[in-house]
Amino acid sequence: MLAPQVEHLIDAALEEDLGRGDPTSEIVFAARDQLQGKLVAKQPLRVCGLAVCARVFARVDPATRFTAAVTDGDEARPGTVLAHVAGGARAVLGAERTALNFLQRLSGVATLTSAYVAAARAGRARIVDTRKTTPGWRALEKYAVRVGGGANHRADLSGGILIKDNHVAACGSVTAAVQRALAGAVHTLKVEVEVTSLAELDEAIAAGADIVLLDNMDDATIRAAVERAGGKVILEASGGVSLERVGALSRIGVDLISVGKLTHSAPAADISLEVERGT
Amino acid sequence: MLAPQVEHLIDAALEEDLGRGDPTSEIVFAARDQLQGKLVAKQPLRVCGLAVCARVFARVDPATRFTAAVTDGDEARPGTVLAHVAGGARAVLGAERTALNFLQRLSGVATLTSAYVAAARAGRARIVDTRKTTPGWRALEKYAVRVGGGANHRADLSGGILIKDNHVAACGSVTAAVQRALAGAVHTLKVEVEVTSLAELDEAIAAGADIVLLDNMDDATIRAAVERAGGKVILEASGGVSLERVGALSRIGVDLISVGKLTHSAPAADISLEVERGT
Amino acid sequence: MLAPQVEHLIDAALEEDLGRGDPTSEIVFAARDQLQGKLVAKQPLRVCGLAVCARVFARVDPATRFTAAVTDGDEARPGTVLAHVAGGARAVLGAERTALNFLQRLSGVATLTSAYVAAARAGRARIVDTRKTTPGWRALEKYAVRVGGGANHRADLSGGILIKDNHVAACGSVTAAVQRALAGAVHTLKVEVEVTSLAELDEAIAAGADIVLLDNMDDATIRAAVERAGGKVILEASGGVSLERVGALSRIGVDLISVGKLTHSAPAADISLEVERGT
Amino acid sequence: MLAPQVEHLIDAALEEDLGRGDPTSEIVFAARDQLQGKLVAKQPLRVCGLAVCARVFARVDPATRFTAAVTDGDEARPGTVLAHVAGGARAVLGAERTALNFLQRLSGVATLTSAYVAAARAGRARIVDTRKTTPGWRALEKYAVRVGGGANHRADLSGGILIKDNHVAACGSVTAAVQRALAGAVHTLKVEVEVTSLAELDEAIAAGADIVLLDNMDDATIRAAVERAGGKVILEASGGVSLERVGALSRIGVDLISVGKLTHSAPAADISLEVERGT
Amino acid sequence: MLAPQVEHLIDAALEEDLGRGDPTSEIVFAARDQLQGKLVAKQPLRVCGLAVCARVFARVDPATRFTAAVTDGDEARPGTVLAHVAGGARAVLGAERTALNFLQRLSGVATLTSAYVAAARAGRARIVDTRKTTPGWRALEKYAVRVGGGANHRADLSGGILIKDNHVAACGSVTAAVQRALAGAVHTLKVEVEVTSLAELDEAIAAGADIVLLDNMDDATIRAAVERAGGKVILEASGGVSLERVGALSRIGVDLISVGKLTHSAPAADISLEVERGT
Amino acid sequence: MLAPQVEHLIDAALEEDLGRGDPTSEIVFAARDQLQGKLVAKQPLRVCGLAVCARVFARVDPATRFTAAVTDGDEARPGTVLAHVAGGARAVLGAERTALNFLQRLSGVATLTSAYVAAARAGRARIVDTRKTTPGWRALEKYAVRVGGGANHRADLSGGILIKDNHVAACGSVTAAVQRALAGAVHTLKVEVEVTSLAELDEAIAAGADIVLLDNMDDATIRAAVERAGGKVILEASGGVSLERVGALSRIGVDLISVGKLTHSAPAADISLEVERGT
Repeated sequence: MLAPQVEHLIDAALEEDLGRGDPTSEIVFAARDQLQGKLVAKQPLRVCGLAVCARVFARVDPATRFTAAVTDGDEARPGTVLAHVAGGARAVLGAERTALNFLQRLSGVATLTSAYVAAARAGRARIVDTRKTTPGWRALEKYAVRVGGGANHRADLSGGILIKDNHVAACGSVTAAVQRALAGAVHTLKVEVEVTSLAELDEAIAAGADIVLLDNMDDATIRAAVERAGGKVILEASGGVSLERVGALSRIGVDLISVGKLTHSAPAADISLEVERGT
Repeated sequence: MLAPQVEHLIDAALEEDLGRGDPTSEIVFAARDQLQGKLVAKQPLRVCGLAVCARVFARVDPATRFTAAVTDGDEARPGTVLAHVAGGARAVLGAERTALNFLQRLSGVATLTSAYVAAARAGRARIVDTRKTTPGWRALEKYAVRVGGGANHRADLSGGILIKDNHVAACGSVTAAVQRALAGAVHTLKVEVEVTSLAELDEAIAAGADIVLLDNMDDATIRAAVERAGGKVILEASGGVSLERVGALSRIGVDLISVGKLTHSAPAADISLEVERGT
Repeated sequence: MLAPQVEHLIDAALEEDLGRGDPTSEIVFAARDQLQGKLVAKQPLRVCGLAVCARVFARVDPATRFTAAVTDGDEARPGTVLAHVAGGARAVLGAERTALNFLQRLSGVATLTSAYVAAARAGRARIVDTRKTTPGWRALEKYAVRVGGGANHRADLSGGILIKDNHVAACGSVTAAVQRALAGAVHTLKVEVEVTSLAELDEAIAAGADIVLLDNMDDATIRAAVERAGGKVILEASGGVSLERVGALSRIGVDLISVGKLTHSAPAADISLEVERGT
Repeated sequence: MLAPQVEHLIDAALEEDLGRGDPTSEIVFAARDQLQGKLVAKQPLRVCGLAVCARVFARVDPATRFTAAVTDGDEARPGTVLAHVAGGARAVLGAERTALNFLQRLSGVATLTSAYVAAARAGRARIVDTRKTTPGWRALEKYAVRVGGGANHRADLSGGILIKDNHVAACGSVTAAVQRALAGAVHTLKVEVEVTSLAELDEAIAAGADIVLLDNMDDATIRAAVERAGGKVILEASGGVSLERVGALSRIGVDLISVGKLTHSAPAADISLEVERGT
Repeated sequence: MLAPQVEHLIDAALEEDLGRGDPTSEIVFAARDQLQGKLVAKQPLRVCGLAVCARVFARVDPATRFTAAVTDGDEARPGTVLAHVAGGARAVLGAERTALNFLQRLSGVATLTSAYVAAARAGRARIVDTRKTTPGWRALEKYAVRVGGGANHRADLSGGILIKDNHVAACGSVTAAVQRALAGAVHTLKVEVEVTSLAELDEAIAAGADIVLLDNMDDATIRAAVERAGGKVILEASGGVSLERVGALSRIGVDLISVGKLTHSAPAADISLEVERGT
Repeated sequence: MLAPQVEHLIDAALEEDLGRGDPTSEIVFAARDQLQGKLVAKQPLRVCGLAVCARVFARVDPATRFTAAVTDGDEARPGTVLAHVAGGARAVLGAERTALNFLQRLSGVATLTSAYVAAARAGRARIVDTRKTTPGWRALEKYAVRVGGGANHRADLSGGILIKDNHVAACGSVTAAVQRALAGAVHTLKVEVEVTSLAELDEAIAAGADIVLLDNMDDATIRAAVERAGGKVILEASGGVSLERVGALSRIGVDLISVGKLTHSAPAADISLEVERGT
């Protein structure tokens, strides 16, 4: 079962592509024509989105049969068959592009995440996502990050207290900001604060922050921060972390490395539908 | 004015990030606190999405003032101010991430498109998009392609007749498929057919196709196709066209080059909100 | 399967009639009472809308059984049974009026269209519809036109380029308008232009229009237009074409005759539900 | 202010015609081009729907100026200017067809109603509508009936108790059905019962019905019914009442004559937009 | 089958509680873990809302099995099992709170209503509800009143003519107001008028009102009103009627006693889910 | 500005009461009639919901003028004027009931909460709400709790980790459950666990829980728990806490007392609209 907002996104996607019909298939195929095809990986990838993909075919025609050949999270090589689909020719081809658009994007996010996770394995850091997701895709892309082996940061603005530089500026100091947050927040949420220097890190720890985000610091500063914190707070490194740098960063000893690129710039994975037989 | 489906996407995006409130800003800022900031490019880019961005701030609070400093389609350099925004601190920071997520993605598509268009200028081909768009984003991404200097292919399945390999297979031959389409299509739509060989191109022309899509052919074959067609049909080249290859391909003389990457794999452009002053 | 917008229209229709319940049936019938009835034609008609009708009963109660006795497009005489319906008495009678309202209107459109098509058979013209449809009913009424043997004109403003008098005036001349359209339109759409004189027809052909709409011309002028065009463009006659005139007009040799009346003024076909047995 | 369901219908209507844009006007007109036009009656008609029409233009572009020259309920002759509209050329022409589709249909209903009302003036009967309305249009068409001088029957199934033949059959007799309704109905609703003979009329009166519907009776029987009832119940005549018959029927002395045709078969009134000036 | 607005309320309720997921259960339970539980009354109550409750579980997961052990309208004692539910542990616990929130509120309304009905049995009055319902809950709470043995007043503003003091003031007198209503109302609706004195009651009867609402009168005045009316109109007593007073009031002889408290202040009934077994 | 889900609830509320119109006011008042009135408290209450109330009038007619005379959170006595409203008579009276239904319920919740908060002031505990809210009203009722001086518990299932007895049972022990949650939860959420004995409290503290919920314990046990915890965890007392007991409980020293009654059983506050003048 998919969340309602995912159902709505699927409906919107079908509406924008198929909402006015598919005159080509309506002319070429008779209503009773059947088709059978398979979804095939054209590059190495981490599969993600099979349930969404299945749902797209089902929304176009519940009589369509979609059978996954692998599971979300599996690694595929070029040529790996991901799923089989069969049904009315008009339905299968009418749903094809939308289904692939979902599957390719989600597999793209999972594939990039898994590369980061593999690189970070050298150390102890978990790779987490950010709120830099494609509008309308928050839940799906956060799912793809988990499928890729990453962990999620807060789901939305309400899922945690995260004091950023502008909040600090408004309060006068890291200390003041953290204290205000500790007093005012719902008691079930932790308090995280973004710092830009080791002095601010000290302030954050002293004020009682639960988590500290080290914003755009170089490796040396982060190393000093890890030592300074001495496990008293959870440390998150953030800011333009490339795949090349993430291994070294992980070994320094931060708890979390957050990467916006996982969701805002992952290239689509190459997957196509190959028709096997029509009748 | 934005199309209704864009309004819905904005609402969905705000719902998924801000729908449960923003406790951090609610604690840190008083309801009356004001903020002023600017959106700044952090890399060279082709700007796209200012109206959507403005609308995001207005949806969160109509009292917010958004003033674009440039126009969609302008080139920006690192440091270029794209817009100013002012209003309640809670509203501006609550809308920030969603507004940027739109602007960064659309500018990313426009930026990549403009690179392809620049490279294709060596020849006569127009760069066109495909239906490989992010589900829910069809209209916006097609707009970004135009802002980047590209042209649009059909908006959806109903915006043209495009006979693909599976359709040809179902009809028995290119000739049969084109003839069926010419007889059955609404009289306002042209008939395009995908071919995989020069022999099929000949068939398509003889059968009366208006447009022929040359699928995944190498440059030599495409050159032969251009000669063979002699201007009798519109020719579209398609299939994994890289930025490196597009200039040469354009010079061969095809009318259109379609590129899926423009919309499914453009990296987000780097843009950020810098707060200037709060009161 | 019905398109989402048709599902929404059905829901809106049920809401406006049955949304607050049906106190009469709730008082008269017990929840377990069953009913069996048949939909019967009370006039000669071309049947259209059985699937919509079936869906209305199913929306009110999925346990209702609707069995069509004929098929969309069949001719019915007074007394012809169109369908059987059985189920809970409250459900069947609660859905009755809405189901009939759909079926009577769609059959009305199909019936009038089939009369035009029969009359036009004397010549070669196809009868096509217009955009003068009942707001909210575009897809359904265009379907009814096809069921009546007619063809569809463009589905909406985006389904073809159609340059009307106001567009021509804005461009200065038919020639200028057609040229601008040929340069600017998506390559998959044809260019149609409305002309009011033979001189404009000549211009349109010379400028490269694909289709020419002859607006409100008398038969003599249309005859001259057909000769002048000599098959170089598709010709569409339009403007207040009555059932009496359509045969002669078709024999003149235009390709298409568009008739607004098919959708905006077709009288409802007379159909009623006769209850056969209740328990 | 329009009811929410009317707003939804307007949105659906614009979506189905203009949802994918209007490429013709986008090519022909620049974004800044302005247009001025007037809505003109092309036949004698009773005007209805100006507010809906105004709203259609406003939904496409709030900057459009719509000025009604007459009022709903006014009589217009061929050439009467109904309204002026001015605004962006793309907006005015993009909204034109949808606005006219509403105005023509509603004016058609009002015009036919006013003809019935005029004919019935010979007697004392009020002309009332039925639930045979266009799905999705219940509120609008009932409004048009009032504008045409008619009165409304119940708005929906919940707006009154109306015992029909199938209900009578289920209860065993008119007497039993009326008694059950009087006992079970919400105390604010009257009880109406459909009868097919004078004997049933007697039963209905004796059982305490508030209103009696005389179903498909000839004038002589209706005359007898009026005498028999002697003012003890409200009498409604129903069933295929033509414009020719309605005057005589009204003179017989029934209180109400209900006419399905008012809403299900009124031909659209002929109205067009004439552009006066563009810049 | 539930009405569409109830379905929407269920969806909104699940969205607001479960829309972002249930991380606790997702961590604690594996996807395949099953659970079995029962809904148990913790106080004496009149059960209401089992179908809504069942639907909540089904919306979260159609594979959940909900089996009612009693029927809406049954009396339960502390310990009475109302229903059994079994299914995936995540689904059952994710739906639990929302399902109970519905069931507890509706049973609360039915329980309070049944207390009023029992007390009124001493006389002849029916207990009816008002329009003082929880926004969004009109249909559900009116259903709960019926389940509790009460009757419904008009469903909404359109379900009857009810002339209140402000309407009377605007018309000048009760007589004028009633006359205007009798002339203008749809013929299927009765006319009710609110009076504040016996003189106004006389006016109302003389003017032809169908129903008279006695607003906030003491028992002596109501007794006089009952005598004065002598059965010529339906009499409704209204205004802060407590459970203590309702028996005496009913014995006086009014037809209806309306009680706002039934819906706006009924305390929730105490019901809980007890888990029996997990696997 | 109200959250989108509140806007939807207002729309649904108006639809269910006013969606089919208000025939009484339409008959009694002319379209141009104006009215002026005031909202007056009829009992001592804590005001809550003025913005929602204002929005209801504005949705019915934007020309209505609503002027609050007090502020949410103010105390009112019988006779205190809460707001003035003026506008078209039909609009004001059409919106009245819905506006009051919102205001009375929210003020009822705020009033009850403020009584609990006042009683708890004897000690150090904060009064917090639960997820036992009226379906569809979560955000509004949690707002009313804050207006009443209470604090909110988690907004929904995703706003904190709360391990209940069923979760503990599934994991085998409090220790195992807490450890699993600490390992698996998003790092921004705290971990709360429900315990039923002091032994389980010890386990919870040892395992690293952030918050412990003391479920249905008597005062003596709670006192022991407070001593045992010694400030190492946040302590929440829960379970049928009456207004009589809450003061003593607060003095014992728990941090939080959660009360379901605040939202599921608060009686509506008595408020009415008094019309001052009509024209």
